[in-house]
Amino acid sequence: MSLEQTEKAFLDYLKEQNAYREAITLIQWDLRTKVPKKGVEQRSEVVGYLSQKLHQMQVSDKIKEFIDELKGKSTNEIIEKSILECEETYEKNRKIPETEFKEYVMLQSKGEAVWQEARDKADFAMFQPYLEKLVEYNKKFASYWGYKENIYDALLHNYEPGVTVKTLDEVFPKVRSSLSELLQKIETSSIRPNTELLHTHFPKKGQKDLSIEILNRMGYDWDAGRLDDTIHPFEITVNLNDVRITTRYDEQDFRMAVFGIIHEAGHALYEQNIDKKLEGTPLASGTSMGIHESQSLFWENFLGRNKIFWESHYDLFKKYAPSHFENVSLTDFYQAVNEVKPSFIRIEADELTYPLHIMVRYELEKALINGEIEVRDLPQLWNEKMEEYLGIKPQSDREGVLQDIHWAGGDFGYFPSYALGYMYAAQFEHKMLETVNIDQVIRSGDFSPIRQWMTNNIHQYGKMKKPLDILNDVTGEGLNPDYLIRYLTTKYQDIYQF
Amino acid sequence: MSLEQTEKAFLDYLKEQNAYREAITLIQWDLRTKVPKKGVEQRSEVVGYLSQKLHQMQVSDKIKEFIDELKGKSTNEIIEKSILECEETYEKNRKIPETEFKEYVMLQSKGEAVWQEARDKADFAMFQPYLEKLVEYNKKFASYWGYKENIYDALLHNYEPGVTVKTLDEVFPKVRSSLSELLQKIETSSIRPNTELLHTHFPKKGQKDLSIEILNRMGYDWDAGRLDDTIHPFEITVNLNDVRITTRYDEQDFRMAVFGIIHEAGHALYEQNIDKKLEGTPLASGTSMGIHESQSLFWENFLGRNKIFWESHYDLFKKYAPSHFENVSLTDFYQAVNEVKPSFIRIEADELTYPLHIMVRYELEKALINGEIEVRDLPQLWNEKMEEYLGIKPQSDREGVLQDIHWAGGDFGYFPSYALGYMYAAQFEHKMLETVNIDQVIRSGDFSPIRQWMTNNIHQYGKMKKPLDILNDVTGEGLNPDYLIRYLTTKYQDIYQF
Repeated sequence: MSLEQTEKAFLDYLKEQNAYREAITLIQWDLRTKVPKKGVEQRSEVVGYLSQKLHQMQVSDKIKEFIDELKGKSTNEIIEKSILECEETYEKNRKIPETEFKEYVMLQSKGEAVWQEARDKADFAMFQPYLEKLVEYNKKFASYWGYKENIYDALLHNYEPGVTVKTLDEVFPKVRSSLSELLQKIETSSIRPNTELLHTHFPKKGQKDLSIEILNRMGYDWDAGRLDDTIHPFEITVNLNDVRITTRYDEQDFRMAVFGIIHEAGHALYEQNIDKKLEGTPLASGTSMGIHESQSLFWENFLGRNKIFWESHYDLFKKYAPSHFENVSLTDFYQAVNEVKPSFIRIEADELTYPLHIMVRYELEKALINGEIEVRDLPQLWNEKMEEYLGIKPQSDREGVLQDIHWAGGDFGYFPSYALGYMYAAQFEHKMLETVNIDQVIRSGDFSPIRQWMTNNIHQYGKMKKPLDILNDVTGEGLNPDYLIRYLTTKYQDIYQF
Repeated sequence: MSLEQTEKAFLDYLKEQNAYREAITLIQWDLRTKVPKKGVEQRSEVVGYLSQKLHQMQVSDKIKEFIDELKGKSTNEIIEKSILECEETYEKNRKIPETEFKEYVMLQSKGEAVWQEARDKADFAMFQPYLEKLVEYNKKFASYWGYKENIYDALLHNYEPGVTVKTLDEVFPKVRSSLSELLQKIETSSIRPNTELLHTHFPKKGQKDLSIEILNRMGYDWDAGRLDDTIHPFEITVNLNDVRITTRYDEQDFRMAVFGIIHEAGHALYEQNIDKKLEGTPLASGTSMGIHESQSLFWENFLGRNKIFWESHYDLFKKYAPSHFENVSLTDFYQAVNEVKPSFIRIEADELTYPLHIMVRYELEKALINGEIEVRDLPQLWNEKMEEYLGIKPQSDREGVLQDIHWAGGDFGYFPSYALGYMYAAQFEHKMLETVNIDQVIRSGDFSPIRQWMTNNIHQYGKMKKPLDILNDVTGEGLNPDYLIRYLTTKYQDIYQF
């Protein structure tokens, strides 16, 4: 075959893989939003079968031949980068013995089920043997995959390629000490936001209509997406023209749905604005968990919890909100939605203490993977770290070590992405300010200049650029926590008047 | 391999096929209910690819080996009947040369697109060349498949195995003459139902809540199904525990949604109550189009348009309907929802004239496939037949020959199923009356004895029994139009007082 013919055959093979991926993704969306409960069991078999077929293609001799024949030879950048993605997936999977891979897949699914029950019962002992095995497998896999300095780097690589323990160990302590300092000032401030005023009955319909109007202003494309109800909110990309988001409505606390939708729409804008010519290749996706989170956090926090935003959108809010809010002053409202208060549950944490939750997890999983601590000691270590970092101690493992699903599904190395995304977001904001008058854009009610900046600098590339390359290309520097620290300091000085 | 091992391998192979089928089905449901419009194009590629994979398995050498090794040898009835189903699909598809099959698939999809435009423009000439090719292919396929007496029998077999031109040519004229006689009496009756009273604004929510309450009484299992909005209502079986229905709401005519939902739920009850041990085999489905339609029509007409039903449920109706209906007498209402009036559009036809629409189509497609008429003459022949059978002549092909999608998709031999289903339903009703006091059941508001009778006699078997075997086993006789004629005569004598 000529190079051209091989390239064509390779792209066709990618399209086949993509057909499975798209079918699986739609099934997963359905499983989490629409499926009637009795239909789940049979459906899970279907997902299992299709996932296996996709996996077989990703590690097939055929894909290996394409890699060997095309790597470094194609003049087409999409093909060249797709080959590198395929190679990484191939190598990553082929390095794991097939029997271990199968056992691990079963362990993950069993682990999540057991975790669910263990969490409900706040019974860590029940989950412990599974977590021990999951940690063992991850240590083994990390050693198969290889690393230069720290075994945990091999896991980090799966979510944030280029970021290492060395980087995190430089950056995180710096963030932590600044946040602790801020937290101390906030705790001694005389300002005490009244969050009670937020817990008024706000019907679902109003919350939804308000959110839709904000999404319109953000530029979410409804012809290439939709919004549904779910228990655990998420964004899911069926294809680049079908990027769906979901949310849950709490009629006693609108923040969950409204900020949640803005957050998921931040992810969705990323995916909707990836260059369509990447469709059908493994490049048609956000480049990393961290960069993805930079997008969702930017919209949720830098825009959605921004003072200018509420100054210019409080009337919009009142249009959809119950009459109760008529008597709430903008200042009281703004303070309430930005209250800082150490709490146990990560996903309910405020903007300031959130990174501290991540650091607790990072320290623990790094130590676990490095064999410095044992799984059985986790609950105690968790509680100690929470007390050390946030000044509060969980009363049960349900609000402690058992709260997140990640480890139960074998996701080690994932958590740091959340904090990285936050730092990236602050770095992007700083850069954006050079050319975009963000305050003015927010006031205008048409946020498209912000979206456009993100698309030009980040979205369009999909996986054509690695996360740290994007960061460097956009900001001219590497990971730098100073922007986040400065952003938080300025914001909370204003709110808490210190 | 031992027989047992081969059987196990065969069942696994069926499960693989089923995984594709289930994924494709869910994608189709999504395409017709949820997908954002820009996502359709890429999704169609995915359906195409997965359908091709499924087709390859159905005609593979591997399935042929299973057929050869297992046919007539298994003591397991499910395996034996699955083998026969697989053999039929295998033979049917292998008899068509691969190039012709591919051309035909493309022609179908092109045909539907052109038909859509031709119908909108009422331009038959535009559609004619496609229809000519579709007819040619169907004639060719029918000759590949073979038949005993009439070439059209080979097509009928795809939808209603066991039913032939000979049967239809005996039965349909009998039905037609009775219906014509009834129609004449109705047209000279002094009773003139006032349907204007139905065209009052009835908000979607009320229509939906009313329909849901009726479905609850029918025994539709919401844990194994759901109801969504769509343009063209349908029932779709993702798996036996996930049987979904859809509808469209017309706020100026509640009949479309309410009777439509009952109709689709009739299909759904069939599928929900197929024996779960057939799941994952080709037997896990209604046995034929005709038997399926007997179920939807039974619930829609024999129950939903029944006098006792409205006598005992008019209060329920009023609970959800707008206050306007408070002043409408039960008699006026009942007459209005049962008005007989020849009209052009099949899917809007009343219970009495509906079979005449089917006969027009049957006569024409039988003649087309037998080469007795030409495609170009269809519009004129259609209009002549409509005038002959229904006494009205379409003013445009849009409300004439172009109204249905079936031929555009290559579905020849399908239409008779609708009339057959109607006759089956009347035969089932007659038999059911021997053991179920239908009137009393309807009055009780709990229709489960009817559903249970259908499940015991029909639903549970899936494709384990052929349609005419079911009919014979249940009623002790073959197709007999007398029951339908008697049912319609009694019903309309009462309404139109002749």
